Amino acid sequence: MSSESGEVPPSGQAASKKAAKKEAAKQEKLRRRMEEASNSSASQAAEQEDDPLSANYGDVPLSELQSKSEVDFPYTEVGSLADHLKDQVVLIRGRAQTIRAVGKKMAFIVVRERGFTVQAVASELADMVSHQMVKYVATLNRESIIDVEGIVSVPAEPIKGASQKVEIQVRKLYCISRAAPALPINLEDAARSESEIEKALEAGEQMVRVNQDTRLNNRVLDIRTPANQGIFRIQSQVGKIFRQFLLSEDFVEIHTPKLIGGSSEGGSAVFKLDYKGQPACLAQSPQLHKQMSICGDFGRVFEIGPVFRAEDSFTHRHLCEFTGLDVEMEIKKHYSEVMDIVDRLFVAMFDSLNENCKKELEAIGRQYPFEPLKYLRKTLRLTFEEGIQMLKEAGVEIDPLGDLNTESERKLGQLVLDKYGTEFYILHRYPLAVRPFYTMPCYDNPAYSNSFDVFIRGEEIISGAQRVHVPDFLTERAQACGIDVKTISTYIDSFRYGAPPHGGFGVGLERVVMLFCGLNNIRKTSLYPRDPLRLAP
Amino acid sequence: MSSESGEVPPSGQAASKKAAKKEAAKQEKLRRRMEEASNSSASQAAEQEDDPLSANYGDVPLSELQSKSEVDFPYTEVGSLADHLKDQVVLIRGRAQTIRAVGKKMAFIVVRERGFTVQAVASELADMVSHQMVKYVATLNRESIIDVEGIVSVPAEPIKGASQKVEIQVRKLYCISRAAPALPINLEDAARSESEIEKALEAGEQMVRVNQDTRLNNRVLDIRTPANQGIFRIQSQVGKIFRQFLLSEDFVEIHTPKLIGGSSEGGSAVFKLDYKGQPACLAQSPQLHKQMSICGDFGRVFEIGPVFRAEDSFTHRHLCEFTGLDVEMEIKKHYSEVMDIVDRLFVAMFDSLNENCKKELEAIGRQYPFEPLKYLRKTLRLTFEEGIQMLKEAGVEIDPLGDLNTESERKLGQLVLDKYGTEFYILHRYPLAVRPFYTMPCYDNPAYSNSFDVFIRGEEIISGAQRVHVPDFLTERAQACGIDVKTISTYIDSFRYGAPPHGGFGVGLERVVMLFCGLNNIRKTSLYPRDPLRLAP
Repeated sequence: MSSESGEVPPSGQAASKKAAKKEAAKQEKLRRRMEEASNSSASQAAEQEDDPLSANYGDVPLSELQSKSEVDFPYTEVGSLADHLKDQVVLIRGRAQTIRAVGKKMAFIVVRERGFTVQAVASELADMVSHQMVKYVATLNRESIIDVEGIVSVPAEPIKGASQKVEIQVRKLYCISRAAPALPINLEDAARSESEIEKALEAGEQMVRVNQDTRLNNRVLDIRTPANQGIFRIQSQVGKIFRQFLLSEDFVEIHTPKLIGGSSEGGSAVFKLDYKGQPACLAQSPQLHKQMSICGDFGRVFEIGPVFRAEDSFTHRHLCEFTGLDVEMEIKKHYSEVMDIVDRLFVAMFDSLNENCKKELEAIGRQYPFEPLKYLRKTLRLTFEEGIQMLKEAGVEIDPLGDLNTESERKLGQLVLDKYGTEFYILHRYPLAVRPFYTMPCYDNPAYSNSFDVFIRGEEIISGAQRVHVPDFLTERAQACGIDVKTISTYIDSFRYGAPPHGGFGVGLERVVMLFCGLNNIRKTSLYPRDPLRLAP
Repeated sequence: MSSESGEVPPSGQAASKKAAKKEAAKQEKLRRRMEEASNSSASQAAEQEDDPLSANYGDVPLSELQSKSEVDFPYTEVGSLADHLKDQVVLIRGRAQTIRAVGKKMAFIVVRERGFTVQAVASELADMVSHQMVKYVATLNRESIIDVEGIVSVPAEPIKGASQKVEIQVRKLYCISRAAPALPINLEDAARSESEIEKALEAGEQMVRVNQDTRLNNRVLDIRTPANQGIFRIQSQVGKIFRQFLLSEDFVEIHTPKLIGGSSEGGSAVFKLDYKGQPACLAQSPQLHKQMSICGDFGRVFEIGPVFRAEDSFTHRHLCEFTGLDVEMEIKKHYSEVMDIVDRLFVAMFDSLNENCKKELEAIGRQYPFEPLKYLRKTLRLTFEEGIQMLKEAGVEIDPLGDLNTESERKLGQLVLDKYGTEFYILHRYPLAVRPFYTMPCYDNPAYSNSFDVFIRGEEIISGAQRVHVPDFLTERAQACGIDVKTISTYIDSFRYGAPPHGGFGVGLERVVMLFCGLNNIRKTSLYPRDPLRLAP
C-alpha cells in the first residue's frame, strides 16, 4: 500500500476487480493507439518498409520502452568516449543537439549527454547504412533522445563543436523520444553570452537574446544549457560540503516542521493557511525549532530546508521560497565560537569548489564571465562600528545605529576589498534595534548586539548571533519588538528547563551560489524560483 | 542588512537613532533587573557574602554570559573523561542530572553532556570547598546547566549510574542556567522502559508512565532521554548515508519548490493557501519537479525535504508533514535499474548503521527493546502476483488487482520472513489501478504496472516506479485518474521536448528510522511531529 513515502496514491484506492479490468482494457486500447501514432510519425514507416536495412534505425515504439527487456549491450557515457576506444563498437544515449545533412548521403549529429558532446556521422554504406537511414537521421528533431550504435574513430583533424575528440561512425540509430519540431527556446540562444550578442551586433548581425521570464517559463529547456548545468551541480556541491564539514564537527542534522501555529517570528509577512481548522503559517526559518533542539541537548544542529517569506520584494536577491542552511550550537563563552565555524566552513567550501568544480565554473564563466572570489585563509572580522567608520571616512553619510542598506553594503564591500584584499568578510556587533528579538545584547553596550552578518562581493549571505537563553529576558525582548508572546509561548517555555548559552546562523543557499559565481540574479540559482509574481513551473 | 538568509529582520527595520537609544536605555535597565533577580534567587547571595570561598561557586550573572570573554581554560567533554586524566584539573559543562546530598558535608551530582554522564563530588575541604558551597550544590535544580571545575580521580569501586568510570572532585561549581524547580516531566520517568514499569508493578510498586501526548507537549525535555538522543542521531546518519551513496553514484542534489500552483498531484487532500492572490498548495511530494529535472538533463537527481499531506489519518505511521527522501533517474531499459539502486543503497545503509551506530542502537534498545533487522546481501524481489499467491496459500482472501491493506502487508511480511529469512524486500509489478497516474503500465499486461513498494518488518517505506514519459499518453492517464490536466500542464509540457525514459522512488525518512529500530509509532521518529490534531510545539 503506497501511502506515506514519496508517492501519492490515487484517490480511488480500493478499486474493485471489475473496475480494474475495465480500466486495463481501456489502457491497452490507448497504448496500441499511441504506438500506431508514434510509428506513423513523419510518414517514415512507409519508406522504411522498402528498405532491407530498416531494422537499423527508426522510432522505438512505446512498448519497447515499457521495461520489456533489460540492458544486454552496455551503454558508454558520452563523457568517457576517448581514443582508447578506437575501432570498438559503442552504444550511447543522448540528445540530438544539432543535426546537419551534407548532400543526401551523409548526416552529422552532435549527441549530448550530461554536458558532454560527441559528433556522430551517418554515411551511406553498402549493407550497413541505407540512404533512407541517412534521410531519417537528417529529419530528426533537435533535442530528441536517441540511441546511437557505431564504431569509434579518431579523426585526423580535431573536431570543433564537441567536447569529445573522437567521432562515431553510425551503424544503428533509434529515436527513443521525439522532441517537438519547434522548441519554445533554442538552446544555442539560451546558452549565448551577452558579449557574443554584442559582438554580433557590432558586426551588424542581430542575435536572439532569451529574456529571463522566457527562460523561467521554459525552465526544462533552459536548465539544459552548460551554464545552468554547472550552476546546479555547484549548488549540489555547496550542500555536500556544508553537511560534510558540520557532520565532521559533531553537528546533528535535524528536520523541523514548516507548518507552525501562530505567526512564525513576526516581522516580515508570512504565508498563512488553515491547518485542520487551526490558524497556521509556513515557517520563515527553522529559528525557533533549532533553538529548541539545542535546549533538547543535541549540542550542535544543522538543517537544510525550504524557508518561506511572503514579502513583496522585487529585487535581484529576494525569493518567496528559498533553501535555508541553518546552524545552531551551544557556546561556552562567546559568539566568536560561532564565527569560527562560519570562517572554517566557508573557507573549506570555497577551496573545495575551486578545486573540484573547475569544469562547472568554466561552463558558467563562458556564459556569465566572472572573477574568482577573493578570500583570505583566515576570514576578516570587522565590527559594525569599524564598518561605519570606513564608510564615514569615504564620505558616506550613515546612521551609526541604523541598518546598512544595499548601497552602503556594496560600498563597504568595495572599501574592504581595497583595504584588506578580500571579498568575503564578517561584520559583527550590529545595533540591537536592527536585529530580531531573540538576539543577545552586548554585555558592555546594550545598543549593540552579539550578532553578525557575512558578506560576499558586497552582499549579505549569512546572518547570525548569540541568542537570549533566559526566558524572562526573552519575553521582554519579544514584547519590546511588538511580538505577541502568546503565539510563541512553547518556544519561550523551552528555555525554562535549563538552557545552555547558544548561537547560530542562517545562510541562503541560492545567494551563496549566486555570489560565489558573480551572478546578477538569484533566479539564476533557484531551480524553479518563486517570487511574488511567479508560482510556476 | 539581514534579510534573505536564515534570520528574519525585525519589523521596525529603519529605527531612528533616537528610538534606538531609548530602546538601549530600556534594555540596560531590564538587564540589570534580570541580573539582580538571578543573583538573589534561592536567597543564596546573603549566605555567600559570609563565605571567604564564595568566589568558587554560585549563579553566573547574565552579563557574564553575554560574550564578555572568550574561553581561556579549555572545556573537556564529559564523554572523553577517562583514567588517563587522573589527578588533572578539568572543566566541564553539562546538566545536573541528579543531585544527592549526603549529610551536610557532601553532595553528589551526576553531570550529563550529550548522552554521557560523570559523577562529581562536592565535599567540604579546608581552604577549598566551604559548607556553604556544599549546601549550594545540594539545592541546585535538576536539569540546570552547570560548569564544574575539579580534579579527576579514579575510584576503587566502579561507579554505578554514570557512563564514565572516573569521578570529579569538585573545586568550583557555577550555575549557568537554572532549570525550573518543578519539571513537567521527569527525565527518569521519560526514559523508563515498559518492562521496568511492569516489573515494578509485579513487585507491587507503581511507576510513572509518561504518555505520548505529554512527551510531545514537552518535547524539549522528552528528547533529552538516551533513547531519543539515539533516535535522532540515527536519523541524521540515515540522511548522511542516503546522500553519500547517491552522490557517489553521480546523482545531483536538487531543491524543488514546496509552494505550487494548482492542486499538486491530486488524490489525497492537500493544504491550500493564498499565494499573493493566486490559489496555491503545498507539494505532496517533489514528484512533478523531480521528473522535470530529469527532462532538464540532470540525469540522476535526489532531494531531501518536507512533504505535506492533509489526510485525516490517525494511524501509527501517518503524519501531515514528514521528510521525503526522493530519487529520480534516467533508465536505459528497465525499472529494475531503479530497484538496483534501492537494493544497494539500503543494504549499504543498514550495514553502516549497524557498524557505526552501536551506541545509539543500544540506547534505543534499552528503552524500546528490538531485534536487529534481518536483511539479505542481495535484496529479495517478488512480484505482486507472487505475493498474492503466498497470501492465498496462507488462506488470506485477497483481491488480485486491488491494493494490499496494512493487515495483508504485515501478513505477507511474516510469510516472506518465514520463507526467505528477510524482513526487507521489494514487491513489484503492482496493479496499475492502485498506482498514481504517472506510473508506466507493464508492456505485457496493462492491468499491471512497472512499479514497486519496499517493505521493512511488514510495513511499506518506499514507493517507486517507471514513469510515463510520453506527453499524450500521460495526459490520457491523468484524465483516466480524474485529474484536471489544466492544473498540471507545465508538468506534461515538460515531456514534449525530448524526455528520456526514467523512474524513481520516494522514501519516508521517519518510517525508515521507525522500522529499522522496530519502534511502534512514527511520532517517536519525528522531532516535532505534525498530525491532524497536533501543530505544536
